[in-house]
Amino acid sequence: MSFYQKLRSIQRKNNSLLCVGLDPDIKKIPKFLLQHGNPVFEFNKRIIDATRDLVCAYKINLAFYEALGASGWYTIHQTLAAIPKGIITIGDGKRGDIGNSSELYAQALMDDHGFTASTVNPYMGHDSVSPFMKSKQHGVFVLVLTSNSGAKDMQYLKVGSRPLYEHVAAKVRKWNVNLNCGLVVGATRPKDLARVRTLAPEMPLLIPGIGAQGGDLQAAVRYGCDKRSEMAIINASRSIIYASRGEDFASAARTAAVTLRDEINEYRKTFFRPKRQT
Amino acid sequence: MSFYQKLRSIQRKNNSLLCVGLDPDIKKIPKFLLQHGNPVFEFNKRIIDATRDLVCAYKINLAFYEALGASGWYTIHQTLAAIPKGIITIGDGKRGDIGNSSELYAQALMDDHGFTASTVNPYMGHDSVSPFMKSKQHGVFVLVLTSNSGAKDMQYLKVGSRPLYEHVAAKVRKWNVNLNCGLVVGATRPKDLARVRTLAPEMPLLIPGIGAQGGDLQAAVRYGCDKRSEMAIINASRSIIYASRGEDFASAARTAAVTLRDEINEYRKTFFRPKRQT
Repeated sequence: MSFYQKLRSIQRKNNSLLCVGLDPDIKKIPKFLLQHGNPVFEFNKRIIDATRDLVCAYKINLAFYEALGASGWYTIHQTLAAIPKGIITIGDGKRGDIGNSSELYAQALMDDHGFTASTVNPYMGHDSVSPFMKSKQHGVFVLVLTSNSGAKDMQYLKVGSRPLYEHVAAKVRKWNVNLNCGLVVGATRPKDLARVRTLAPEMPLLIPGIGAQGGDLQAAVRYGCDKRSEMAIINASRSIIYASRGEDFASAARTAAVTLRDEINEYRKTFFRPKRQT
Repeated sequence: MSFYQKLRSIQRKNNSLLCVGLDPDIKKIPKFLLQHGNPVFEFNKRIIDATRDLVCAYKINLAFYEALGASGWYTIHQTLAAIPKGIITIGDGKRGDIGNSSELYAQALMDDHGFTASTVNPYMGHDSVSPFMKSKQHGVFVLVLTSNSGAKDMQYLKVGSRPLYEHVAAKVRKWNVNLNCGLVVGATRPKDLARVRTLAPEMPLLIPGIGAQGGDLQAAVRYGCDKRSEMAIINASRSIIYASRGEDFASAARTAAVTLRDEINEYRKTFFRPKRQT
C-alpha cells in the first residue's frame, strides 16, 4: 500500500486526524514509572495503549531519544513495536545531508527502525532529501514553515515576490514523483497554512504547534485538510502526554486525546459539510 | 579555553588545517578488521593513530554511526576517547529543531558525547541553533553553502540582490555573540567561498568537498583562511580513510594525509607569505 493510501486508511478507520507526539522527557514523566527497567518505554507504552484507537499517527522526535544515549535507540525500537500495525509512525529527525550520507540516515530510519514516514530539512536541496523519497510506501515530510519563532529568520525571506517557504513547497511538489511527499507547516501560522494548502492541494500536511505551542486548531483543520477533509496530520505532544503528571497520566492522556480528536472532527463537519441538494 | 583559541592552538601545534572525516562504511573497511569485536571502531582507531599528529580536527558524520544502530552510539564514544586531547572533534549531524528539541540535540552532542564542535542547519532560524551556541568552549558550524548538487535548489535563490547563503552567513555573524560560530562552505564552490570569507573575515570555515567530491584545494586555502592563514578547517574523508583497502590502510591514510597537509601548507606560504621589508 502506498503511503498516501496508508494515511487515508487509518484516518478513516480511527476517524481521526490526530497525531500524538511521543516526546518523553525523563524529568517530566510520573515518578512511579522510574522503578521500571526502561521508564521512558513504559511511559510511551501506556500512552499508546490509552490512545491507539484515537489517532492516525504517532510522531517520535528523535531528539528526545538521542538525549538518552544508546538506550534511546532501543527505546525507539521498543516503542515502534508497541504501536499497532496500520498506524502511521513518523521519525521526526529533520535530517538532511549530502547524498551518500542522507542514504544512511534514510536506511537508519526506514529500514532499521522501520518508520512509516520521516521528516527532512530542505536547505541542502534535492539530493539531500531524495533518499527518503525512493519508496512509495514511505512518506517524507519536508519542513516548509515551522512553528517556532526562528521561522522568520529564513523561511519568510522574500525570494522574488514570494517568501522562501512558498518556493520550498513548490519544489517539493516537483520532487513528489513517487506521490509520497508531505509538508510540515506549523499551526501557529494559520494564514500561511492556508497559502500552503492552496499551493499543494493534494499533499498531506504535518501540522505541529497545537497545544503547548498555542497553535490555531480551527485553522489547522480548515486549511490543513484536503478537499475530502483528510490528509492533515495534526500533532499535539505535551498537552496530551503530560495532561496529568500523576498515576492517572494514561487515562488523562486518553481524555485529552478524545477531546482534541472530537474538536478536530467538529471543525471537519463545519468546514467540509457535504453540499446539500437544493 | 574558548573554541577559537582551541582551534588556533591545535592548528599551530600540528601545523595543519587538515580535518579527517571519520566516516566508516562497514562495506568498505578492510576485510581483516571484521574479526574484531567492533570493526568500525578498530578502523577509526588505526586511522587516528596514523594521523593524529597531522590534523587539527576529526569530523564524525553521525549518519555513518546511526546506520550502525545502537552500537553506533558506543562507537562514537569509543572513537572520541581515542582522539588525543587538544584535537578538535566535530559532531557533524546538521541538526536543527524547535528550541526545546534542539536543547536535547545539543545535550546529546556536547554533554553526552562531548564533541568540541557541532554542525547545524539554519532553516529553522535562531532558536533552533542557539542551544549549540551557548558555551564559548563549544564551536558551532552553521551550514551556509554545501558541496552537493542540491545546494542550488535553495542556497542560491536570490533574496533581494544576494543569494540566500549570503543572508545566512550575515545572520550567523549577528548570532555570534559568544564568538564560537563558524560556517560550513563547500570547496566545490571556490568563487562563493571567497565571497563568504569577505562577509565573515574572522570566523572559522569548515570546508568539506576536498578529495572524493573534487573540490578546489587551492581556493579552499586561499579563501578559506583568515588573514593569519588560519581558521580554515579543510576536511577530506574518503580520499584519506580509503587511500588503501588493504592491510596497509592506516599507513596509506597517513601518506595521503601528509601529502594533503603539506599541499595545504604550500598554498598557505604562497598566498599568505609574510610581507617583506623593501
